[in-house]
Amino acid sequence: MTRDLTTDPTPNPTTDPTPDLTPLLAPEGVVVIGASRQAGKLGAAMARSLAAFPGARALVNARRPDPEQGVYATVADAAAHTDGRLDLAVLCVPAPGCADALAEAAAAGCRAALVCAGGFGEAGPEGEEHADALCRVARETGVRLLGPNTSGFFAPHLGLTASFVPAAGQLPAGDIAVVAASGGVNHALSFDLVAAGNGISIGVGIGAGLDVSAADVLEHLAHDGRTTAVALHLETVPDGRRLVAAVRRVAEAKPVVALVVGRSDVGDFARSHTGALATSWRTTRAALSQAGAVVVDDERELVDALTALSRVRLRPQPDPGLGIVTAQAGPGLLLADRAGTDGIRMPELTGATRGTLAGLLPPLTYQSNPVDTGRPAETFARVLGTTAADPQVDLLAVYALTEPDSVDLASAAQDAGLGADSPAVVVVGGLPEDVTDQRARLHKAGIPALTGPASAANAVRALVTDARQRALGEAEDGPFPGWASATGGAVSASDGHPPESSAPAVPVPPGPLDEDAAKAYLTELGIRTPPRVACDSRADAHAALRQLGGPVAVKVLDAAILHKTEIGGVHLGVRTPEELDAALDAVGTGRRYLVEAMAPAGVDLVLGVRRDPVFGPVVLAGLGGTAAEALADVAIRLAPLSVAEAAGMPDDLAARALLDGWRGGPVLDRAEFGRVVAALAAALAANPHTAEIEINPLRLTADGLTALDAVIVPMTEENDHA
Amino acid sequence: MTRDLTTDPTPNPTTDPTPDLTPLLAPEGVVVIGASRQAGKLGAAMARSLAAFPGARALVNARRPDPEQGVYATVADAAAHTDGRLDLAVLCVPAPGCADALAEAAAAGCRAALVCAGGFGEAGPEGEEHADALCRVARETGVRLLGPNTSGFFAPHLGLTASFVPAAGQLPAGDIAVVAASGGVNHALSFDLVAAGNGISIGVGIGAGLDVSAADVLEHLAHDGRTTAVALHLETVPDGRRLVAAVRRVAEAKPVVALVVGRSDVGDFARSHTGALATSWRTTRAALSQAGAVVVDDERELVDALTALSRVRLRPQPDPGLGIVTAQAGPGLLLADRAGTDGIRMPELTGATRGTLAGLLPPLTYQSNPVDTGRPAETFARVLGTTAADPQVDLLAVYALTEPDSVDLASAAQDAGLGADSPAVVVVGGLPEDVTDQRARLHKAGIPALTGPASAANAVRALVTDARQRALGEAEDGPFPGWASATGGAVSASDGHPPESSAPAVPVPPGPLDEDAAKAYLTELGIRTPPRVACDSRADAHAALRQLGGPVAVKVLDAAILHKTEIGGVHLGVRTPEELDAALDAVGTGRRYLVEAMAPAGVDLVLGVRRDPVFGPVVLAGLGGTAAEALADVAIRLAPLSVAEAAGMPDDLAARALLDGWRGGPVLDRAEFGRVVAALAAALAANPHTAEIEINPLRLTADGLTALDAVIVPMTEENDHA
Repeated sequence: MTRDLTTDPTPNPTTDPTPDLTPLLAPEGVVVIGASRQAGKLGAAMARSLAAFPGARALVNARRPDPEQGVYATVADAAAHTDGRLDLAVLCVPAPGCADALAEAAAAGCRAALVCAGGFGEAGPEGEEHADALCRVARETGVRLLGPNTSGFFAPHLGLTASFVPAAGQLPAGDIAVVAASGGVNHALSFDLVAAGNGISIGVGIGAGLDVSAADVLEHLAHDGRTTAVALHLETVPDGRRLVAAVRRVAEAKPVVALVVGRSDVGDFARSHTGALATSWRTTRAALSQAGAVVVDDERELVDALTALSRVRLRPQPDPGLGIVTAQAGPGLLLADRAGTDGIRMPELTGATRGTLAGLLPPLTYQSNPVDTGRPAETFARVLGTTAADPQVDLLAVYALTEPDSVDLASAAQDAGLGADSPAVVVVGGLPEDVTDQRARLHKAGIPALTGPASAANAVRALVTDARQRALGEAEDGPFPGWASATGGAVSASDGHPPESSAPAVPVPPGPLDEDAAKAYLTELGIRTPPRVACDSRADAHAALRQLGGPVAVKVLDAAILHKTEIGGVHLGVRTPEELDAALDAVGTGRRYLVEAMAPAGVDLVLGVRRDPVFGPVVLAGLGGTAAEALADVAIRLAPLSVAEAAGMPDDLAARALLDGWRGGPVLDRAEFGRVVAALAAALAANPHTAEIEINPLRLTADGLTALDAVIVPMTEENDHA
Repeated sequence: MTRDLTTDPTPNPTTDPTPDLTPLLAPEGVVVIGASRQAGKLGAAMARSLAAFPGARALVNARRPDPEQGVYATVADAAAHTDGRLDLAVLCVPAPGCADALAEAAAAGCRAALVCAGGFGEAGPEGEEHADALCRVARETGVRLLGPNTSGFFAPHLGLTASFVPAAGQLPAGDIAVVAASGGVNHALSFDLVAAGNGISIGVGIGAGLDVSAADVLEHLAHDGRTTAVALHLETVPDGRRLVAAVRRVAEAKPVVALVVGRSDVGDFARSHTGALATSWRTTRAALSQAGAVVVDDERELVDALTALSRVRLRPQPDPGLGIVTAQAGPGLLLADRAGTDGIRMPELTGATRGTLAGLLPPLTYQSNPVDTGRPAETFARVLGTTAADPQVDLLAVYALTEPDSVDLASAAQDAGLGADSPAVVVVGGLPEDVTDQRARLHKAGIPALTGPASAANAVRALVTDARQRALGEAEDGPFPGWASATGGAVSASDGHPPESSAPAVPVPPGPLDEDAAKAYLTELGIRTPPRVACDSRADAHAALRQLGGPVAVKVLDAAILHKTEIGGVHLGVRTPEELDAALDAVGTGRRYLVEAMAPAGVDLVLGVRRDPVFGPVVLAGLGGTAAEALADVAIRLAPLSVAEAAGMPDDLAARALLDGWRGGPVLDRAEFGRVVAALAAALAANPHTAEIEINPLRLTADGLTALDAVIVPMTEENDHA
């Protein structure tokens, strides 16, 4: 159902760094090619949808022209008889006719086109030919092309509905933009957003994306004053770095909420070695988060996130505090339980706040956080205002069942000053006919209205995630400045690739490296390794044992052997010359050996940097052991990255408790971890001839992090995806 | 915000095994004590809500009686002047007056009461006194008491709204019952269910539950012909076995969907040893699942599950196949992705089905599973019917955006015969005004209508979970018949405790047992252990090494030592007499030793049975290693249990891939695992003087399961919760 993202042979025909999509998304005039009067036909549905467009309009039907009714035989005819410029051609013809129709439209002055039909890349060699022909015309004429395989787009504030789904024309104008891989999802998300009380600035279904991609539309939206927040739905990513650059650009100005398809393929991906733990789905989500998008799990969470983020945004901060005020204990507990599960901080209220609340509420109510008011009374607005004003509270979540005879909740929220300057999310529960008006009034006041505890918890998580990610973007860089801060607005969008690190690059020696050479390289990066001696003979090994003292590890030293343990090439805890001889016997004669001091016990991590075919250099970090691996419990970031960004990776791990003094064990110094990761990531980014560096295990001990084994894989034809 | 479930000192005043809640939930007449005319007062809101009740009604206000207006000075007066029996007294008086008011009501013939007020158990010693007084009156009079601390209940088909939330009176009658720990959640869930197109048979908020508990209401619902499905919300569980018995009784006849609060406490619970991995939240969810309830994560999932399960139910089967038909590829992909993530099987369609579909759909559409129809045409109903009729398809999920000019989806679904005999869930996407009618028509035809891919995926998961759990209940028992099948309908609800296993109980020897004795006991249960020799001297140990051959494990043998490894009491891989001497030296002189053959490498599990303070004997199974432990990746069941139930436990584990041939390793025989677990569970259930049995590790090797270490903890005063 999706095109493979790595093998799409179609190049993006434009190289314009800020492609102007105005003729496509905000045209002066529209012409429908293949317009029809036959109900049920695409060309009829599209003509009807576009009939409401207030700009220039024309229909083309080569076989049944009817100029009196505005139906012309050719686009040139249509253009000649139409006031204003026909920027956009909507092609309602089958795949084999599209290239010619596009050429005709371009010749008549159209600068953009929408192709809804299927029958291109997904339809075998013949379809591929149609796709190639279409791309060729687009490239030669400079016409920007949306589609094929999409139900189109809509821009309600322009009265423009280039979609064959009739209800699309009823979508109210508003400030949320939808950019969806699928035309159907574009419509579904837009309908859902509207059902939740929002309006749409523009909604675009990318479809096959032969020309215009999600990144193109995002670039356009970065400068679109009507849009305050963006919904992004992705199935495949043709150019990871370009997409990430576009998301970053938009997210700097307005929130982006992203839904990525492809989780259920995860079973395929959970294979041996850290590299295999990376999946397109995981990597895409990680890359989007790193670029500043709020990544969600399903379309409902997307709607909740945007209902909130299109209205309020917390100031950038690493750990915002949530205050909860609830008129009913049970739903408030559901909300607090979910927020706690999500890792949202719910601070104690200050003594001053509690003192004020004590004067506002009956004595038996719970006046901590959550504040449980009991049935809301006339003091409800002051309870909201007091709690929101607590210096520990950065975001207020309010739950109340509507009880018209006790308090008007929308007025109370406004009286409390909730809104942009006092961020809050408000749930008004009740029957649909009772709550619709309350929710609309809250929205009018700029206060996000949610539908229940889960919905509010989604909104809270989105607001907090957004604040945390922006705080990270603002964080000071460590010694290995990463992409986030190094790029700012300076990266050209033409390729979206980050600049190389400004730290002096440490070159990786050429050719395959043995463990000793790999560790020497890590030492140059400032990553600690155990004391060791590379030995050319048994005598050297005995000398090394005397020098290092016991216990030592004895390993075969050979760049050609990647899995030393499996062939009996690793012997641990060797203390005496006799044990050493036994170990050397087992490794085999005529070998080189590495004799290395044993590291103290601790917690093993796995850290790797490699080149993702879609996103380029990526870092992967996880815990050692088969359970962590089976669970694919791995944190991923694009490389290079800042120390601050890298320092946050351990907190992505489900089993992170093991790194925080589990059973009296060592506590991971996040800054030290960040420095190690950033150094490794910068090294890969700076060494184009290196495919992969893996430290497995990277051991956390009471003394910090030590690399116990390391592999550096040079680039070969086989692993070169560049 | 919740009462601690283990220390609630208030006994349930009734011992009636099938308590008759008819006077409470379906009274002939209702009297409001403390009725008021002052708007905003509880007594006024309640009087207004009950004004619509068509049975006998009376109001009591001792200070301002007004018999002309139906307001009497006493309950006796009210009863004397009212046609029909006043079964139910609704107490709208503060906590200190409730006991006297209840006594007055009982004396006047009331047989049930609702107490909404707070100020009881949660309000310190004085409140506890009020609670005790209230319970005493209830016990002495036999009046059944709902509350306190609840906003009440409603039974729309009776016109009975014993709630002070005004909108509760507008809830449409229907077939879903709500049983909620919290009055607020009772209302919130009911409103949400109605917003999704459902009606309510009855909604009850348990509140503090001094008398009537969730289990009582469930027993009542088991016999309620109006209710076809039940929503259950739990915060605390006063009597785990009684609740489980009630859930089981209801679930045998109609679906129960359960939402349990308390997940965010999980950080507190994830401690060392399997015992500590059990949490009230996890155990409660596990117990409810085992009893046949569909356990959900939030209130939206609950609504989706009930929207489906109140209309259709799959036949019991271990792994139903899902077919998907979608008119838009993108939303269908979202649904398929979620279903795949949830472990729902999406079978290949048969050749015959695909042949038929090829004749119904345009050539370029995707005609596998999912079936992607493109814009629905007049063949849509036949596409639905053909796919639903595929022998591989047990459940059909349909997605389509509403397009009135292409096809009428509700009619197509009906024409296809979807409904009770052809289970399906249908999403009609679009603007609210366009889809409301379609959804209502689908519901009228008995076809669950959902709101989007996530909503449909929740419904699919619920239907499949229900079918799987019922299949398990029907499964043949192994040699250790468990509770599920042993109880049937025969268990008296008076205590809800399961009968002891019918397998002959193997008595645990008295007193603390050392590892050798513990393993001897496991052998009696049919659980394999490695060959071993208990040694009283070093000479015995040397003889044992000669007898067993190397390598062996050498361990200190002492029932008083629970953590042998931590004190240097375990030495592995001992091969020679010299190594044995070194090991014996390290263990210490004057000790008893266990010399045991080393087991082959494999995957380590942890298996324990213990007594939960709420639910009694429970089994816990997880993978060995700190990562699994940190993640609290554990499967829980109540004991005793059937071999079939136990065999399903490994599939609850997130890291279950490790048990299925991970990297060429051994594959767990589920039946063997089930026999081991069922034997251990039956042993604990049959030995009341044993507190806990733990096998850690239970090693999976190519030869099957072997217990490498075992601890049997006798009951002491400290760990006796009975």
